[in-house]
Amino acid sequence: MIIDKYNQRAKKTNSLLCVGLDADFDKIPRKFLKLEFPQFEFNKWIIEQTHEYASAYKPNSAFYEARGDKGIKELKMTMDYLIKNHSDIFTILDAKRADIGNTNQGYVSSIFDWLGFDAVTLHPYLGSEALKPFLDRKDKVSIILCKTSNQGAGELQDLNVKHSVFNKNVPLWQIIAEKIYKDWNKNKNCMLVVGATYPEEMKKIRNIAPDMTFLVPGIGAQGGDLESVMKFGSNSEGLGLIINSSRGIIFSENPKEEARKLCEEIRKYKDTFLH
Amino acid sequence: MIIDKYNQRAKKTNSLLCVGLDADFDKIPRKFLKLEFPQFEFNKWIIEQTHEYASAYKPNSAFYEARGDKGIKELKMTMDYLIKNHSDIFTILDAKRADIGNTNQGYVSSIFDWLGFDAVTLHPYLGSEALKPFLDRKDKVSIILCKTSNQGAGELQDLNVKHSVFNKNVPLWQIIAEKIYKDWNKNKNCMLVVGATYPEEMKKIRNIAPDMTFLVPGIGAQGGDLESVMKFGSNSEGLGLIINSSRGIIFSENPKEEARKLCEEIRKYKDTFLH
Repeated sequence: MIIDKYNQRAKKTNSLLCVGLDADFDKIPRKFLKLEFPQFEFNKWIIEQTHEYASAYKPNSAFYEARGDKGIKELKMTMDYLIKNHSDIFTILDAKRADIGNTNQGYVSSIFDWLGFDAVTLHPYLGSEALKPFLDRKDKVSIILCKTSNQGAGELQDLNVKHSVFNKNVPLWQIIAEKIYKDWNKNKNCMLVVGATYPEEMKKIRNIAPDMTFLVPGIGAQGGDLESVMKFGSNSEGLGLIINSSRGIIFSENPKEEARKLCEEIRKYKDTFLH
Repeated sequence: MIIDKYNQRAKKTNSLLCVGLDADFDKIPRKFLKLEFPQFEFNKWIIEQTHEYASAYKPNSAFYEARGDKGIKELKMTMDYLIKNHSDIFTILDAKRADIGNTNQGYVSSIFDWLGFDAVTLHPYLGSEALKPFLDRKDKVSIILCKTSNQGAGELQDLNVKHSVFNKNVPLWQIIAEKIYKDWNKNKNCMLVVGATYPEEMKKIRNIAPDMTFLVPGIGAQGGDLESVMKFGSNSEGLGLIINSSRGIIFSENPKEEARKLCEEIRKYKDTFLH
């Protein structure tokens, strides 16, 4: 299973850290801007600083698309570099895509085949029938938005939905977690996005989907608490989490040191909460 | 208001037709594949064949991203061509984006500023706080997915949600339509995606949002019925609809003739149903 790629790396490095390669052109150090491929060169440097602590890398597509075809080319160069030099590290394109039916084939070709990512983030709103071109790819992971880390996530995600089995109302994110766990994950290639900023919800989603892996944004700049994430989100093997940090690492004075520190914290809580 | 750009063009051409520039590389006529910029050359030809009947053009980003940076470059060339030669035609990038907060700024820069589109399609799941970088752009239109045209759209969109004002359950798409109409549309720059394949829902959404414009996919290949769309979707001025056709026009034997025929049908029903 493709999910094993992440688990093997996580075990090998004893880390659940995902470094967000959000190479925002307005924020990368000035010295890179003089180079021919600034986003690629910045990423290469970040990868070399952080790889020993990283189980995954996750560029957000928006920061590359902002520069048009040039940015897309540098995203491709970044992936070529990762595949050549660190092929055992799990790669996620945070693209938050989802179109209907066959149109998704374009995204599948682009993200999985041309760029070569192991996984992509997806919106659930169009339903599983629409997402089939992604879900059918047993060799790739579909990471579906469930409870996101942003402040206003609840506006729709917390709406009270009538549960079709139990005669009560539950939040929309719960219905989505249940559907993905029971129906969408037939190929065992789904993960869920669960924000670090909502630990109570994470606890409930862990109950709904005991053996699924969660991609967890929101640690650091967004205010998510690592201890709660590890306490409520880890599965029984001390895995089941991909803990992302972007700005807190890549735009710090010393990315290597920040990655090491976060990795050490993860290891500490992993030992504490391993059931 | 930016929405006036569409209305003015629709009045001038007496058409509500949007031609979907879905330049699928596997489907465009072979003669274009020999050229240096096949997707661009195909689009240029389609635009010249159809522009007299078109009030809008809507490329779907997936078909360009499938070819990596090359495709993005040809999408840009297509937009440069449209802006130079047909600047009064409304342009929509069907990209179905939505990230959180500032990350969206990358998509805003790419889609609105670099490519120069008038409008973009967006997923609602992250809420209006997340979409602020799009919604704040008074000079651009945010077209938000409400009830999509695909067969499995109902899996999430029809979930029964407890209405916060009326003490009853309503479908999720209704809550989303109401929220967008009442709260998200403060800058009068929102539209809704409402699929042609769900005419009853379209009727209800027209009641919820009497003066909003709907982008309507699903006519033709997907089985949507133009008469129902015009009957239930037109607003009191015979506007309020952007009726998209992609494959049925662009991959036909004679795109000009197919565009003319669909435009004539729209005109016929427009006269019939104008209230």
